Amino acid sequence: MSLKEFFNPNTVAVIGASTNPKKLGYAVLENLVAGGYAKVGKVYPVNPTAKEILGLQAYPTVQEVPGSIDLAVIVIPYKYVPEALRTCGEKGIPAVIVISAGFREAGKEGLERELELIEIANQYGIRVIGPNCLGVIDTFTPLNASFSAGTPPSGPMAFMSQSGALGTAVLDISLAGRLGLSKFVSLGNKADVDEIDLLKAWEDDPHTRVIMIYSEGMSNGQEFINTARQVTAKKPVVAIKSGVTQSGSRAVSSHTGSLAGSEQAYHAAFLQAGVLRAESMQSLFDVALALGYQPLLQGDRIAIITNAGGPGILATDALERSGLSLARFENETITTLAQYLPDAASAANPVDVLGDALADRYNHALQTVVADPNVDGLLVVLTPQAMTEIEATADEIGRLSKTIDKPIITCFMGEAQVKTGVARLETYRVPNYPFPERAALAFKGMSDYRQVLLRPTPEYVEFDVDRHQTQQVFDQVREQRRLSIGDSEARQILTAYGLQIPQSEIAATPDEAVEIANQIGYPVVLKIASPDILHKTDVGGVKVGLSNTEQLRDAYELMVYRAQRYLPQAHLWGCLVQQMVPAGGQEVLVGMNRDPQFGPLVTFGLGGIYVETLKDVTFRIAPFSVQSAEKMLTEIRAHAILDGVRGEPPVDKAAIVDTLLRIGQLVQDFPEIVELDINPLMVYPQGQGAIAIDMRLVLSK
Amino acid sequence: MSLKEFFNPNTVAVIGASTNPKKLGYAVLENLVAGGYAKVGKVYPVNPTAKEILGLQAYPTVQEVPGSIDLAVIVIPYKYVPEALRTCGEKGIPAVIVISAGFREAGKEGLERELELIEIANQYGIRVIGPNCLGVIDTFTPLNASFSAGTPPSGPMAFMSQSGALGTAVLDISLAGRLGLSKFVSLGNKADVDEIDLLKAWEDDPHTRVIMIYSEGMSNGQEFINTARQVTAKKPVVAIKSGVTQSGSRAVSSHTGSLAGSEQAYHAAFLQAGVLRAESMQSLFDVALALGYQPLLQGDRIAIITNAGGPGILATDALERSGLSLARFENETITTLAQYLPDAASAANPVDVLGDALADRYNHALQTVVADPNVDGLLVVLTPQAMTEIEATADEIGRLSKTIDKPIITCFMGEAQVKTGVARLETYRVPNYPFPERAALAFKGMSDYRQVLLRPTPEYVEFDVDRHQTQQVFDQVREQRRLSIGDSEARQILTAYGLQIPQSEIAATPDEAVEIANQIGYPVVLKIASPDILHKTDVGGVKVGLSNTEQLRDAYELMVYRAQRYLPQAHLWGCLVQQMVPAGGQEVLVGMNRDPQFGPLVTFGLGGIYVETLKDVTFRIAPFSVQSAEKMLTEIRAHAILDGVRGEPPVDKAAIVDTLLRIGQLVQDFPEIVELDINPLMVYPQGQGAIAIDMRLVLSK
Repeated sequence: MSLKEFFNPNTVAVIGASTNPKKLGYAVLENLVAGGYAKVGKVYPVNPTAKEILGLQAYPTVQEVPGSIDLAVIVIPYKYVPEALRTCGEKGIPAVIVISAGFREAGKEGLERELELIEIANQYGIRVIGPNCLGVIDTFTPLNASFSAGTPPSGPMAFMSQSGALGTAVLDISLAGRLGLSKFVSLGNKADVDEIDLLKAWEDDPHTRVIMIYSEGMSNGQEFINTARQVTAKKPVVAIKSGVTQSGSRAVSSHTGSLAGSEQAYHAAFLQAGVLRAESMQSLFDVALALGYQPLLQGDRIAIITNAGGPGILATDALERSGLSLARFENETITTLAQYLPDAASAANPVDVLGDALADRYNHALQTVVADPNVDGLLVVLTPQAMTEIEATADEIGRLSKTIDKPIITCFMGEAQVKTGVARLETYRVPNYPFPERAALAFKGMSDYRQVLLRPTPEYVEFDVDRHQTQQVFDQVREQRRLSIGDSEARQILTAYGLQIPQSEIAATPDEAVEIANQIGYPVVLKIASPDILHKTDVGGVKVGLSNTEQLRDAYELMVYRAQRYLPQAHLWGCLVQQMVPAGGQEVLVGMNRDPQFGPLVTFGLGGIYVETLKDVTFRIAPFSVQSAEKMLTEIRAHAILDGVRGEPPVDKAAIVDTLLRIGQLVQDFPEIVELDINPLMVYPQGQGAIAIDMRLVLSK
Repeated sequence: MSLKEFFNPNTVAVIGASTNPKKLGYAVLENLVAGGYAKVGKVYPVNPTAKEILGLQAYPTVQEVPGSIDLAVIVIPYKYVPEALRTCGEKGIPAVIVISAGFREAGKEGLERELELIEIANQYGIRVIGPNCLGVIDTFTPLNASFSAGTPPSGPMAFMSQSGALGTAVLDISLAGRLGLSKFVSLGNKADVDEIDLLKAWEDDPHTRVIMIYSEGMSNGQEFINTARQVTAKKPVVAIKSGVTQSGSRAVSSHTGSLAGSEQAYHAAFLQAGVLRAESMQSLFDVALALGYQPLLQGDRIAIITNAGGPGILATDALERSGLSLARFENETITTLAQYLPDAASAANPVDVLGDALADRYNHALQTVVADPNVDGLLVVLTPQAMTEIEATADEIGRLSKTIDKPIITCFMGEAQVKTGVARLETYRVPNYPFPERAALAFKGMSDYRQVLLRPTPEYVEFDVDRHQTQQVFDQVREQRRLSIGDSEARQILTAYGLQIPQSEIAATPDEAVEIANQIGYPVVLKIASPDILHKTDVGGVKVGLSNTEQLRDAYELMVYRAQRYLPQAHLWGCLVQQMVPAGGQEVLVGMNRDPQFGPLVTFGLGGIYVETLKDVTFRIAPFSVQSAEKMLTEIRAHAILDGVRGEPPVDKAAIVDTLLRIGQLVQDFPEIVELDINPLMVYPQGQGAIAIDMRLVLSK
């Protein structure tokens, strides 16, 4: 179902329509009339006593309404809502908006009432928006089935908001004229319809060019990623996520766990879905306006035309900081500009048409610059100087914008005088930003969406692994009533998933240790082997570079002595004698932490003390593609280290990518893995692979 | 001189006053009349032919004006300006604003004309603002000696702008009413009066609470720091610096050189001066409004009162991201709130008064929360919901703000409906920000200024050093027509400035090397010694851990062979045999790069490959205090490494601070040092000092 009945119904019933102008039931009905819907569809006020409201015939119940009803809006006290919804079901109404509050948001009893609503909706096959919401608006139908304070102007932006109050602010901004909306949905408690449903419904909506989302949390993260990924191939989705909900209470035993939170999961999810994440409400609007009102940006080369040097510099700084570049003009462009502009003007980018530029000089520069094939987008800066023709310049820009397929945005700086020019620009749908930095961020949003469209077709791989052996390890651990898996058991899992590990074996006595070392060959590493010791170095439980029998025996005895002294309760298996891996490797970290909303969040970062202190890590939600894994390597701040610095050879990046993908597969195959750390994964020069030195893993309860 | 004549003159002459309303000479005169100055002072239009302009008697020259003139404004074509200035000198006019363009900004001839102006000004002791500027405004005198499009409203913000055009935008914003200005100066080419002069002039100006600066560059950086530091103890200075001018052409041979640019120098200078740096024009205004209109913030604990959950979460997120915290209320506060608020409301911070809150509920919450001693500042969020009393709520907030000494700012979200409420807030000088993130950044600005006021009295030290020995090394190097100083010569300088270095000596032959090693004791490090090889590792010129005669001989011969093969032109002194410094140190970098505007820019960062790839460094301009040096250690991202991670002991921070201060003294004592790197400085655990392993230094030509 395309949710058509919510946006373009033939008939609408308002259950709880009121004759009292102070009631929401009146406001909803009034919006249906004043917003123009009553002229294109049938509106039925439902009220137990009234005969007529706002000139429309009223009915005591929906049952008594003649013919079928596409959409019902429920605006009655919460205790009557379940019964009203049931009546809608009986009547065969496919879509219902529940505006009433008093459900999940109101504590335990409310939650029970909401579960009852869901049950009724499922029983009758009703789709529900809300409860506890502001309603739904479609400006093209036109339908205003909400208690908003007015009907916003039409435009290409569709907005969905989990917060009704924030919705009122958005509508108020829209009512001021600059932001035209195609659709507006207040999602409320999301008992049924959620962000995913609306994305699907708006994916092919011809009136919607940009989808805007305000969300406080999502329940089905993986499906959101898949749906949004599909939608963003057709139109941009800009979202703001509020609420940094740290899962603070859960005990975190791995590095990955301490690095990965809900914040990181959303970051990764939006990235993988191609959703542009707005850092602030302001940039949500700034970016959406540029994407909604201007053509797509086809490259990152921007031309600036300004009547003032200072703001031109600010704009240049801001564009470069945002990752865009200043277009380098063709010689012809510069010649043409120079012929027309005064001597003191600058014909190079940024083009300074000087403080005395009238509209025609701006226009000449615009026409010349826009024709340059090296220019992908234009930023026109204007300060209100003594002779500046503010409105006429706005007209030249606006007219030009209608004839070109390159985006053009403006920065008319000021307020009192530039106001009328900005209003003129709005009529042409040229977005104006009062400061250059905001214009630059709008271009960055356009550029980011261009990257979304350019993303390669993702390539997913499936490795031939030994799931059976892995399951056996887990079963064995659970039989022993443990949940954490340390080094010695983890090696079996790593081998089963095709990862390289150092040769090693557990020794229960110093003599056994010597025997094992003789087989492996010196030097060796000795590690305490205990299911109860996860952080071995903290108890002196790791000794490297043991190069003969004597050193090995000494180390063994000291290690066991210390472990017993520091952790007398720990169960000791003995010590692990491990091949000393070749020197010259780069330590990296590969980990996973399961996010409650999005699932397995895989981490990559530099290993050693730097991962802890610098938190230089990046994340993806599994499953992820080969390209995503490759991209992770470029996202850490210290990525240059992987390419080799100071004459070091580049590391074997393919081996890291391979590890990331295999771990991605492991954590998908076994949802019972809640945390996992390979730290360090020792990566050798290109072609020489990587060895997982140490792994820890935690199973779910 | 306090520049009094520019802001509060008794008499003003306009040289170039025109009868033609299209000319700037008319606009300036008109502003003097319309802006109210003509009522409080005498205005003399100077025009060769006119008898009267705008009802004021005109004079052919300033000489013919009866009595003395305090201020002259010159608005005539550039070629006549020097002569006019000379006439001003003859007349004894102390202050002149040159509005005319055609000077330094117009190329070589213009520069010569500007130098002529400076000469005349010096000759007669005239202070000059401009040339190439918009003029000067003082709203309290009132004086509008500019060609601005109107006179801005009075207020506590003083603005100085290097860009006249940007000035027009600022004035236009001010004209719209929200930003009240005390003074406005367009600095133009800064032939004489510059930012430093204005800071001094405004330091004790009772009408100015906040100083705002737009600057594109400064010529006397050190004096700016000293002056601004003094001013910021009295009132906040907020500045935006445009133009990332990289000294791209100069060859950079040190790490510090590649890390430090003009951008870093400004960052350090503003930090040391206590100047708040605005990241964008928008935040320049946002922060200045909060500082100008509200009392000082006395702590970082903010209370949020909102009628909407979603925006409350956004505000919380934004405040915490900005480094502020949510106030924890006293129990009494929560009880009082809970008694008055509806059940569904939240009495904890953020306080949610719910969507149906009228003005009185807001007021009750405000009164209760503001009385809590744990609350340092208030952020009131309002969304325009169905019943919201927008203007009445604004009045409650405004009235409260007049009775308390805690800052209160608002976030009325929306546009069409909230507009009137925002205008009401402006009458109370309560700054409103349309989005929570901007309100949070305004609080951050207030919090940053609080830190400026809390900064400790700086403590400067002077070490007893051997300048003479250092000078000898420099002289010797210059005699050899070299400018760069490597390891072996640098050791003498390090010793002269009291830094620890490893024992070492240069050997010209393998035999000599063995002899030296016998004295120092094995193991030793061998380094190629050549004035021409600065990056020794690149040519295999460093070998560590040589533990006997044989290894040392082999290394010596191989090193010399390689150096000759790779760099046949290099002059070789032999090899440096160096004590192998103890293991267990942390590598850090201490460096210096001389900034053309601010002087010696001292760098501190982690050493090794991380400094290069992560650029995790911080800067100060010398001289800096002990406290500054200490603070540098906390500013690098990886500062936790200095405190010891994974059971490592903390490093000897005092030794790093000592090194930074000694290097700060060295580069001040010898301005001829243009670049310097100690890399690595090996720092040992607390109390065990630091050893400068390697130093490179470059002298000026």
